[in-house]
Amino acid sequence: MDENNLNEEIDRLSNELLEKSDLLRSMRRGEAERCDSASIASAKTEVKDLNRRLGSMLRRRDAGVKKDEGVFDRVGTESLMKRRFFVTPSFEIYGGIAGLYDYGPPGCSVKSNLVQVWKNHFVVQESMLEIEGTCLTPEPVLKASGHVDRFTDLMVKDTETQECYRADHILKAQLEKIIDDPATAEDRKEDAEGVLAVLDELDADDMDEAIASWDVKATETGNKLSAAFPFNLMFGTQIGPSGLVKGFLRPETAQGIFVNFKRLLDFNRSRLPFACAQIGLSFRNEISPRAGLLRVREFMQAEIEHFVHPQKKNHAKFDSVKDYSLALFPRRQQLTTRTTVQMTIGEAVANGIIDNETLAFYIARTSMFCEKVGLNKEHIRFREHLENEMAHYATECWDLEVNCSHGWIECAGLADRSCYDLQSHSESSKIELSAREIYSEVKSVEFLKALPQKGVMGKAFKKDAQLVMKALEAMSEDEVAGTQSQFDSGAESVSVKVADGRSFSVTKDMISYEKGIKKESGRNYYPSVIEPSFGVGRILYCIFEHSYYVREGDDEARGVLRFPPIVAPIKAAVLPLSKNEVFNPIAARVGEALGACGLIYRIDDTGASIGKRYARFDELGTPFGITVDFDSVNDSTVTLRDRDSMRQVRGDIDGIVQSIFSMVSGTASWGDVEKIFPPFSAAEE
Amino acid sequence: MDENNLNEEIDRLSNELLEKSDLLRSMRRGEAERCDSASIASAKTEVKDLNRRLGSMLRRRDAGVKKDEGVFDRVGTESLMKRRFFVTPSFEIYGGIAGLYDYGPPGCSVKSNLVQVWKNHFVVQESMLEIEGTCLTPEPVLKASGHVDRFTDLMVKDTETQECYRADHILKAQLEKIIDDPATAEDRKEDAEGVLAVLDELDADDMDEAIASWDVKATETGNKLSAAFPFNLMFGTQIGPSGLVKGFLRPETAQGIFVNFKRLLDFNRSRLPFACAQIGLSFRNEISPRAGLLRVREFMQAEIEHFVHPQKKNHAKFDSVKDYSLALFPRRQQLTTRTTVQMTIGEAVANGIIDNETLAFYIARTSMFCEKVGLNKEHIRFREHLENEMAHYATECWDLEVNCSHGWIECAGLADRSCYDLQSHSESSKIELSAREIYSEVKSVEFLKALPQKGVMGKAFKKDAQLVMKALEAMSEDEVAGTQSQFDSGAESVSVKVADGRSFSVTKDMISYEKGIKKESGRNYYPSVIEPSFGVGRILYCIFEHSYYVREGDDEARGVLRFPPIVAPIKAAVLPLSKNEVFNPIAARVGEALGACGLIYRIDDTGASIGKRYARFDELGTPFGITVDFDSVNDSTVTLRDRDSMRQVRGDIDGIVQSIFSMVSGTASWGDVEKIFPPFSAAEE
Repeated sequence: MDENNLNEEIDRLSNELLEKSDLLRSMRRGEAERCDSASIASAKTEVKDLNRRLGSMLRRRDAGVKKDEGVFDRVGTESLMKRRFFVTPSFEIYGGIAGLYDYGPPGCSVKSNLVQVWKNHFVVQESMLEIEGTCLTPEPVLKASGHVDRFTDLMVKDTETQECYRADHILKAQLEKIIDDPATAEDRKEDAEGVLAVLDELDADDMDEAIASWDVKATETGNKLSAAFPFNLMFGTQIGPSGLVKGFLRPETAQGIFVNFKRLLDFNRSRLPFACAQIGLSFRNEISPRAGLLRVREFMQAEIEHFVHPQKKNHAKFDSVKDYSLALFPRRQQLTTRTTVQMTIGEAVANGIIDNETLAFYIARTSMFCEKVGLNKEHIRFREHLENEMAHYATECWDLEVNCSHGWIECAGLADRSCYDLQSHSESSKIELSAREIYSEVKSVEFLKALPQKGVMGKAFKKDAQLVMKALEAMSEDEVAGTQSQFDSGAESVSVKVADGRSFSVTKDMISYEKGIKKESGRNYYPSVIEPSFGVGRILYCIFEHSYYVREGDDEARGVLRFPPIVAPIKAAVLPLSKNEVFNPIAARVGEALGACGLIYRIDDTGASIGKRYARFDELGTPFGITVDFDSVNDSTVTLRDRDSMRQVRGDIDGIVQSIFSMVSGTASWGDVEKIFPPFSAAEE
Repeated sequence: MDENNLNEEIDRLSNELLEKSDLLRSMRRGEAERCDSASIASAKTEVKDLNRRLGSMLRRRDAGVKKDEGVFDRVGTESLMKRRFFVTPSFEIYGGIAGLYDYGPPGCSVKSNLVQVWKNHFVVQESMLEIEGTCLTPEPVLKASGHVDRFTDLMVKDTETQECYRADHILKAQLEKIIDDPATAEDRKEDAEGVLAVLDELDADDMDEAIASWDVKATETGNKLSAAFPFNLMFGTQIGPSGLVKGFLRPETAQGIFVNFKRLLDFNRSRLPFACAQIGLSFRNEISPRAGLLRVREFMQAEIEHFVHPQKKNHAKFDSVKDYSLALFPRRQQLTTRTTVQMTIGEAVANGIIDNETLAFYIARTSMFCEKVGLNKEHIRFREHLENEMAHYATECWDLEVNCSHGWIECAGLADRSCYDLQSHSESSKIELSAREIYSEVKSVEFLKALPQKGVMGKAFKKDAQLVMKALEAMSEDEVAGTQSQFDSGAESVSVKVADGRSFSVTKDMISYEKGIKKESGRNYYPSVIEPSFGVGRILYCIFEHSYYVREGDDEARGVLRFPPIVAPIKAAVLPLSKNEVFNPIAARVGEALGACGLIYRIDDTGASIGKRYARFDELGTPFGITVDFDSVNDSTVTLRDRDSMRQVRGDIDGIVQSIFSMVSGTASWGDVEKIFPPFSAAEE
């Protein structure tokens, strides 16, 4: 098959697959013509088969395309992170605990800078509210949110050792092994790809079947695996001394905002839309955390809940972002060509690829944030969730995915949670978490009531008459209209269900109908929620991989972290030329000037060679170096060195410090600084 | 008894009590002449009796002194805090959970400002390291720290309802009720006071006895109480899916620093002393949290661990604080006159009241921090822990206590933890957490060794000979010297204990002694730890009580929070005179100028009267108000109003914004600003 034919075939299969998938979905919802289980099973097989064939085509198409391998240096990055104490496994002296990491001094500082930029970019610039709730959460809250019942992963155990595995992970590893094995027959590869494509869709029974048919065994021992069962990912505990109040560590910060909705709305003087942010810890008891800093059990989230009228999801500031262009990976492209599309955010909304302006506004702002903190825009995309992978609360969801040595990693999720949460908490707590819409003018609304004829009813139902009357009065307008149309079409009686579950036959003479007009000035409604949710640690890790590079030195290659100045833990290194004491007062003066501008600096007077000391600070991502030499003693000028270009300029202390301040604040670039100060050309060492 | 006699009697009793307490302590340690349990019991009774008599004297002395009541307005403060959403009980719509609170938008902001000031005051200004560890902590870590075994409170239960009470709380309440009851006989009051004075010393048996003899019943029901038993205050959970790895939520952030000691020392290039800070959540499952924001189950700590050579606890910057004067409440004064003493921190160290310069330095810096964030220095004291109330790890401890409507509240603890933690973790983890001291010159050190005579021993002990030889070789130098001196003083044999617990008689001919000189260039040692530990939420609450006051208004009294500008959530309110649109561009320009300086502001264009709008912002503690009026439209001048004096000045926008920036940064006062700008005298409304 030549390339043209291949692409035509891919298109044909793609369209067929999309059609069949839509059909399967509507069958499952009971909305298709035939929804019996046999029809569903056969549709499922068809979809699987199409996936299998399409996968094979795509593999052929991409066979010549070279992979991103080698772009990122995981070993180099992680070894630098550990060596310079950016991070370390928690409780290392006790052997560590999988999925827990501590931030050392420079890591702590990068993280705190990152959070500060986030706060400024979202909370301050978008005038959001911010709250801080507790991690400890009582069970009813997480029951209402759906987490107690549905926040699970399928797990299997080694039947001998009881070692636990995430079912999808262990199956995926096996399938990939089979696909990568050159000895595997082509049609078996296609089968494996068909399963991989629907991995997120497998329920416990599907999983058991797949594990059996693909002969998946426990990784370390090769033992047989147990049946798959759902494992809840929340950490449980008991609140209070009685042991009777069950609680969990929150799995997301969002719920803390929802339960405070009434107070927030009140604080915002009942106006909508508004957004509330929360930055804080969340906890997930991952089954087998392996991907280092990317899958941890305790992590910082930065979440925003934007409350908006369900029919008015436009955004006042949408114009300011509409020409911003980014890489989108919509559902259609994932299911078919598996390539992203580049477009402006305005086009994405106009073409219905992103549902509404508010969600789109946050996608654009999220991308801008990524650029600000040092992620490479070429390695960022926004991927739409497939219907089957969406969380139980979401109606639309886009993930910020960042490419790194682990592949494309979800670093933020932007979901339309609809009114799911506010409605659930209203029902569970019996406190209505709604907003009120005031109509621009009072509306006249028709109403229809069923009035029970007490005398007739009393005679017919005796002591049950009260119950039947109450049931009639509690009927919705639609139900009342239903009874009326039944009588109109000749029915003798209608069946009315009462509170205790019994049904009674109510005849026409027992009801009279009242129809009229009432005035309404507004209505209560549950706002929709658009939620941008960020995983701080994952973004941080990707910044490290995107920032790390190796510079060949005179004696050895040295690692550099090209952090943007705003993210760097130390903004400037002050380096006296040697240990000669004559430099100390000048170095101290430079330090004071930096400190007065709020710039974090370190003086390194260890007397190592300037080159070695630059290298130390390059490893910490320090963007600027100031050298104090013998000329400094005479004329108070110093040398300023730019980390990445390694170019240098010379200027007076105050001017140099001021220029560092401008570059850290983002109001000037190195290029601007080079226009002000003369270059300095002494060899670096 | 006249006043002089009373004071003499108090002095006499005080001295006697101190003497007897010292004796009791040394009996308990087994260091007194007679340490049998009968003697201890009788000494205990004597101390209790002296406490009882002294308490009665002090009560007579203080009878005429008026209490601080009315200085703080708890109801007013808390109602404002809730109304303006500074705080709210967590999960309020679900009925709330005792001991859990959420911070609403302005509370979140005050807290974040407070933490920022703390970080700047301690971490930045004292060049500390900072780390961020996890809340989830595996059991072995907290076993080593002593928390698994000893982090308990005594608890009693209502025998019918199973309701739980903290034993000391419920006993204290009963004793205070008895003392306050005018019908109680004087000697019974004295008895009750005797028990109150030793409340912290009661073990479970003492507690049961006291509960029985003072007839303490369950508060709500009057039911009988169970025996007292220790309840561990840590929240337990399971880490990982197997259910086999027991973990806790950390009860303090400190341990996260200790377990990272080696990496920190390395990061600091092996130099001591150094300090490492951590700001983060800690969790304590309080038995019955009642005092609102003061006793909560999840709270933010800001802790510093200062590592120092045990024999060199001087502090390089001590001179900078030595003349700072504060109120100390040393052990002696607590046990006797119950009054604080005012002195400089230099005097306190010179007189041995505070053990060392490092601890004293932090006490002074802590007090300065309190002043900076708006605590009233008159309501601050540092109270030394009594021996019996010190945590299991501490050798000396001073609490920062802040006076508020709840009485004197512990808001920070400054403890000398000695080398307890590093040593415990070294023993448990088998990783030595020590520092190395390099002697200024190589030392010649005498050594003494016991060399077993293998032949003689083999004959005497046969197959056990190896065991005995090993025991001899493992002896410390002191032990070796001990055997030598026993033989020298004529002993035939000495008893040597071997690894399995048996003892053997070793005769003189089985050992030869080797004495010599060895060279040592340094030694390993466990550093001591000085720990200042702050409860952020408690300090925050006290700031609210110290800041709140009521200003009589034209129509009603209005609450004001006199936050220092640096702590205030909003630095300036921008108030257009009316809803007239002509003011909008000027208000926006003022806002932009404030924003450019990083000053958080709000524009209130609701059109309420200026007075009403000022009052709204006074409640939020906003220090400055800028009014835009018709003159502003013509000449770009605005009015600046100071919250507390309610005085006003008039100036151009940039000048006014700059002056606000100076006052927020702490480089200028309102007085300074009044010298620059002319006063503005229009009535406030």
